[in-house]
Amino acid sequence: MGRITSRRQVLRITATGSVRRPDTLAVEEPLELRIAGTPVNVTMRTPGNDIDLVHGFLLSEGVIADAGDVVAVRYCAGADEDGVNTYNVLDVTLAATARPDALGHRHVMTSSACGVCGKESLADVAATSRFDIAQTELAVEAGILASMTQTLRKNQRTFDATGGLHAAGLFSADGALLVVREDVGRHNAVDKVIGWGIAEGRVPMSDCVLIVSGRASFELVQKAVMAGIPMLGAVSAPSSLAVDLAADNGLTLVGFLRGETMNVYCRSDRLKQTSVGRPTLES
Amino acid sequence: MGRITSRRQVLRITATGSVRRPDTLAVEEPLELRIAGTPVNVTMRTPGNDIDLVHGFLLSEGVIADAGDVVAVRYCAGADEDGVNTYNVLDVTLAATARPDALGHRHVMTSSACGVCGKESLADVAATSRFDIAQTELAVEAGILASMTQTLRKNQRTFDATGGLHAAGLFSADGALLVVREDVGRHNAVDKVIGWGIAEGRVPMSDCVLIVSGRASFELVQKAVMAGIPMLGAVSAPSSLAVDLAADNGLTLVGFLRGETMNVYCRSDRLKQTSVGRPTLES
Repeated sequence: MGRITSRRQVLRITATGSVRRPDTLAVEEPLELRIAGTPVNVTMRTPGNDIDLVHGFLLSEGVIADAGDVVAVRYCAGADEDGVNTYNVLDVTLAATARPDALGHRHVMTSSACGVCGKESLADVAATSRFDIAQTELAVEAGILASMTQTLRKNQRTFDATGGLHAAGLFSADGALLVVREDVGRHNAVDKVIGWGIAEGRVPMSDCVLIVSGRASFELVQKAVMAGIPMLGAVSAPSSLAVDLAADNGLTLVGFLRGETMNVYCRSDRLKQTSVGRPTLES
Repeated sequence: MGRITSRRQVLRITATGSVRRPDTLAVEEPLELRIAGTPVNVTMRTPGNDIDLVHGFLLSEGVIADAGDVVAVRYCAGADEDGVNTYNVLDVTLAATARPDALGHRHVMTSSACGVCGKESLADVAATSRFDIAQTELAVEAGILASMTQTLRKNQRTFDATGGLHAAGLFSADGALLVVREDVGRHNAVDKVIGWGIAEGRVPMSDCVLIVSGRASFELVQKAVMAGIPMLGAVSAPSSLAVDLAADNGLTLVGFLRGETMNVYCRSDRLKQTSVGRPTLES
């Protein structure tokens, strides 16, 4: 455990010469998820907060609604050639209230950032979600939303060392940082944040804003919807399907969140423009 | 087809106000792959070059070695509510020489950028690859390698419009651009490039350099290895497992390829430092 970074020798080449030196890399290792002993998923992730990752993944897939749907999670099997546990296999025992059949389509799935799992249509997500985000009231100052990306960036400690990790952060409406997670997979970072929320008993996280360090894909919007998070802000661009899914579910989706500027793709009514953006021009 | 970008209304907020305007988004849609009618995979991708995408994916997974292993690929089923073909389902008819069993582990798979597909160990990739990259001779000037990222960037036409796409480019050793593909999924962009190579009869692409616009994950290295490409350059960081897989297979892996600087993680012997980097210091 604690294998978040790893050192490798590198030949650094610049315009003036080259030198061998150590370089710090983000660790990427497979995590196999089993339910009652049956393998159901493998994700390439940065080790750490694996229990949260599994909880967040299962909630995003509609298998669990809260921590009560999980009886136990334990590292199992997966010993390396020296007989040492790799901590890369987690076995989950679900409660009778869980819905493992929600993973039924999973065998035909992979995605641009993983996590869509055979549900090809927007309707599938809407049918699976237990929370009505469209009815969730939340008011966030645009200037405070803008500050969240800066707060997230300041807390990307492993990115500072490696330059190679995505980050997801959960904030309250007043801009207070609740949790940050980093991972080689953007979907894993979000799953870890959602898993934290499950452990804290905060789902549906209707008073929270989710901020991600990169782009907003369909499956990141799906995860926010499934966790009952009414606002998602991304540093980079959303995809067309991300915007469609957000619009369908009444999620406030903000992209290109940089400095004091941002693009609001839907449900801009949750954003208050008092600290940023004085006149409002509707054209 | 040709659905690469899509327009949506957006509320643009800046420090001085806000305005409603159209925004151009990268299109993300599911592509279901079937083999002889059986669904085997769904990926969220940007439409376009789907036939190449499927070829590149199947080669990366060890199912096909060249175009001769595929008898036919056709769009099928997947009509929308108006009865119009969505062009989101492709059915592949394999030749008897193909190895569809290589997809056997697939039902338990997803990855940080997709494409690892149940093969948890480095050994799995080595066992599946048909080409010995370690023995492949290639010499590239460091300065020319540096120029490839600039050439790639200049050819990311959809990124210019949307800010939301990964890119992969294939180059010859002298820096000539052979092909560029853009996609919401980095693995799809690489699959499309490899699929182009298959159609051109260039696999193994032992005289080529693959350049990617983002990070280098395990599965991107896997794809290069499977296609017989001996050098992979990434604008951002590699992961630990990417470096390990590259080292195991004798792939030249270069990260942080920016301006005239770069980090070479393994097999630096293929890089010549005449145009960039005069003195070489080994420490």
